Amino acid sequence: MSKEVSEGKDYTDPPPAPFVDSEELKLWSFYRAVIAEFIATLLFLYITVATVIGYKKSGPCDGVGLLGVAWSFGGMIFVLVYCTAGISGGHINPAVTFGLFLARKVSLIRAVAYMVAQCLGAICGVGLVKAFMKHDFNSLGGGTNSVSHGYSKGTALGAEIIGTFVLVYTVFSATDPKRSARDSHVPVLAPLPIGFAVFMVHLATIPITGTGINPARSFGAAVIYNQDKIWDEHWIFWVGPFVGALAAAIYHQYILRAAAVKALASFRSNHSN
Amino acid sequence: MSKEVSEGKDYTDPPPAPFVDSEELKLWSFYRAVIAEFIATLLFLYITVATVIGYKKSGPCDGVGLLGVAWSFGGMIFVLVYCTAGISGGHINPAVTFGLFLARKVSLIRAVAYMVAQCLGAICGVGLVKAFMKHDFNSLGGGTNSVSHGYSKGTALGAEIIGTFVLVYTVFSATDPKRSARDSHVPVLAPLPIGFAVFMVHLATIPITGTGINPARSFGAAVIYNQDKIWDEHWIFWVGPFVGALAAAIYHQYILRAAAVKALASFRSNHSN
Amino acid sequence: MSKEVSEGKDYTDPPPAPFVDSEELKLWSFYRAVIAEFIATLLFLYITVATVIGYKKSGPCDGVGLLGVAWSFGGMIFVLVYCTAGISGGHINPAVTFGLFLARKVSLIRAVAYMVAQCLGAICGVGLVKAFMKHDFNSLGGGTNSVSHGYSKGTALGAEIIGTFVLVYTVFSATDPKRSARDSHVPVLAPLPIGFAVFMVHLATIPITGTGINPARSFGAAVIYNQDKIWDEHWIFWVGPFVGALAAAIYHQYILRAAAVKALASFRSNHSN
Amino acid sequence: MSKEVSEGKDYTDPPPAPFVDSEELKLWSFYRAVIAEFIATLLFLYITVATVIGYKKSGPCDGVGLLGVAWSFGGMIFVLVYCTAGISGGHINPAVTFGLFLARKVSLIRAVAYMVAQCLGAICGVGLVKAFMKHDFNSLGGGTNSVSHGYSKGTALGAEIIGTFVLVYTVFSATDPKRSARDSHVPVLAPLPIGFAVFMVHLATIPITGTGINPARSFGAAVIYNQDKIWDEHWIFWVGPFVGALAAAIYHQYILRAAAVKALASFRSNHSN
Repeated sequence: MSKEVSEGKDYTDPPPAPFVDSEELKLWSFYRAVIAEFIATLLFLYITVATVIGYKKSGPCDGVGLLGVAWSFGGMIFVLVYCTAGISGGHINPAVTFGLFLARKVSLIRAVAYMVAQCLGAICGVGLVKAFMKHDFNSLGGGTNSVSHGYSKGTALGAEIIGTFVLVYTVFSATDPKRSARDSHVPVLAPLPIGFAVFMVHLATIPITGTGINPARSFGAAVIYNQDKIWDEHWIFWVGPFVGALAAAIYHQYILRAAAVKALASFRSNHSN
Repeated sequence: MSKEVSEGKDYTDPPPAPFVDSEELKLWSFYRAVIAEFIATLLFLYITVATVIGYKKSGPCDGVGLLGVAWSFGGMIFVLVYCTAGISGGHINPAVTFGLFLARKVSLIRAVAYMVAQCLGAICGVGLVKAFMKHDFNSLGGGTNSVSHGYSKGTALGAEIIGTFVLVYTVFSATDPKRSARDSHVPVLAPLPIGFAVFMVHLATIPITGTGINPARSFGAAVIYNQDKIWDEHWIFWVGPFVGALAAAIYHQYILRAAAVKALASFRSNHSN
Repeated sequence: MSKEVSEGKDYTDPPPAPFVDSEELKLWSFYRAVIAEFIATLLFLYITVATVIGYKKSGPCDGVGLLGVAWSFGGMIFVLVYCTAGISGGHINPAVTFGLFLARKVSLIRAVAYMVAQCLGAICGVGLVKAFMKHDFNSLGGGTNSVSHGYSKGTALGAEIIGTFVLVYTVFSATDPKRSARDSHVPVLAPLPIGFAVFMVHLATIPITGTGINPARSFGAAVIYNQDKIWDEHWIFWVGPFVGALAAAIYHQYILRAAAVKALASFRSNHSN
Repeated sequence: MSKEVSEGKDYTDPPPAPFVDSEELKLWSFYRAVIAEFIATLLFLYITVATVIGYKKSGPCDGVGLLGVAWSFGGMIFVLVYCTAGISGGHINPAVTFGLFLARKVSLIRAVAYMVAQCLGAICGVGLVKAFMKHDFNSLGGGTNSVSHGYSKGTALGAEIIGTFVLVYTVFSATDPKRSARDSHVPVLAPLPIGFAVFMVHLATIPITGTGINPARSFGAAVIYNQDKIWDEHWIFWVGPFVGALAAAIYHQYILRAAAVKALASFRSNHSN
């Protein structure tokens, strides 16, 4: 509460990532990060879509339930962000990459490379599920995202926007350098609330759209399932998450962080500590 | 166990917040905190009430279940306290704000501003759910709190009091400066037990009242749903949580912290360390 | 793996608690700890037994399910150990107190005082549930522990012994001074695995005995429910947990910690650091 | 993102474990570790198989559900890795031991001793379940792993390979010395994502094979249940996990860690720190 007097002191923002940084193309760590995003998104889609198909195949009360499906999405994000945070930053989601690009945390080159890797990984992950359970995959919807019966496209778009806002807002909160300054172990702990944010959004919006909030997840399932109805509504699962990520970036940078700048100004007339 | 000899030394209480602190009205960080409470309570109500409506709409065994509803409330508190702890303290609940005001952790001005922001945020969050799923919202109870059939108002009030006691006691335990002295990373870890406390109380008391323990949550749902029966019983969801928060504040300040004062006295006759 | 050469150095055991320590009777912190155990066990039984009764009252698929019941027990232990660890050590269970007494972590006086407070708290907690939901409480079994149809008393006793072993072994692992030496924040993190241990044991043994592994929990429910069949089998829920705690203490002190002593001996012929 | 310039500095790899280290046979800590693996695997199988049998015995919606079964496996791994990490490294799974042996984290002698202890512990744990619930154990499948109706052996093998890859990849990420260098408390936090990885894989693949990803778990259940169909397919639950662990070791050592070596080279032309 009364911490603002020292707010100007307890952290330094890293410099913004360059818009285009051709230097990073020469580093192995760049390609390693892209590979890590590819593998993580592959595993994410494989586990979650297999869980969805297994759930739909089982009779009522026999399977893991919709709660188990929501855990699958949230828990895998927790595990995979934990595993890849030190390698690639642990995005596993083009909307997260887009949000961090807007905040100048990653360069344009890296953002594009990540998104391509995520989409390819998602296609491979869903492809594995189809290879393992072909008949069920086709007859049970392929884990795709679409607007459920009884909801309008506007509602679906709104649900995707707010759901992605919750996720990207949590990502920004977890990676805020102010937080890192106060406690040095955030990279380890941040994946848990991020995973829970995904879990929560799935609990709320699976009945509306199946919950996208991750364009790579929606795209991978759409490519492998490949039906007209899915493609017709597919734009919702890119526009919604990107708008949500944009809103979260604006909220974080202009409302929450702008304060830091102003507090810094007001700090100059106070005593240091 | 044998730590009390050093109890007088391993922390210093921050000075109590002033009762009225007109200085903070000049700081951006104050308004930022109020905005953060508004947005967090909006997201809290949007996700949780959407989960409740989705659960009630689904047939038996088809939805996330009552367990999923309880997770939704507890998990969102975990995520949102994590996200807003560094901005506003992460109250998201007028009863928590009231408890921390009683313990002189926040000024009266800040407490009132937070409560207004929380109530407005809750109204907007439930309003979004109604906009997204209008018919179901009205026919399935609107996520409101009321006394369930078979329980008396006294029981409902008691359940709200004890439930809020559990929550606010956990909040006090998590933000105790003694704890901070022993381990410096509490601000990151505290949200998890706080979220679990909310989850636990929902498991126990959803059958009794739908579980309020958060007047803003009950108020937002009541305003948007707006039915006589809900308003008639609405006082329970303000009196109960405020009494519970008062009891937790008394328990923490007089039973648990008073010890620190006495131990300090007894410490003076011991050797320091 | 190769850490044993420094095992003799990276921690010091606190001196064993005196068998009888009449000094602590003069300290407020002693009475505060006893009160904290009383309140925590009261809240534990109130929330968990209310969850059990609510679950049994609901139709299939309508309530929180057996999984919700298991979460209730495990989650409350997580929350309450977190809240009381710094005040009383966070036992909330006579079997845990007995195990820590055997390991000389608490004096006899403190152990007896804790157990009495835990049993009284449990009675009050279950009493609250009965007061709130009288008819259902009596007709739905009162949350008591007994041997389920189809299982022998020997099986029930065995299940209680092993279940308590899992719990007390986790408690010992979490409070091991070696662990504290390596990472200073255990008091904050330990409650989570302890709560999960309780959760796991409930998943496995609710079908056998309803899961005791906590004599205060079984005793409080038995006193308020007060039926012959419950009292006839009540010894199982004291003998089992105490034998399990004894086994865990022996395993930890003689197998796992004895190594420390021997490593210390072997260490003397090595270089320090 | 821009951390690679200091990658060569912020940690030192421990030297690889010797292939055969007869010295460790003289240390009590070696035998203590083997005993800890035995006891942990025994407790793991006892709790999880008892949960499986209890789940299958209950009617629909009456038991803990498939979600509860998945929690049981994941949660026990969390608890037991937490408890044994400081004693034995917390493997509790021959595939994990194999992966860490491939990465030269444990010697051959230790790896073989661990695997034998794990298999014996698993047999004893399942044996306890059979002793406690004999009739149900035999009639309800004994918690064994086999290829479910509707899936081919190839699919089952693939599911085991990828599932174990997820687990062992998480183990490698959690025990990476780079991570330890940046934050010193990994040994405490690592068990949570490892447990979640197990939980996630169970959600996805219980419908396919019952989920092995742990040869000791599959072996223990097969020995006690002892039916031809189980033994005929048993090779899948050794080959799959070992191939998955091999793939994870290759991915971690050649893709993710090779980068460290190259970054070290590129680092030499930069300024230190």
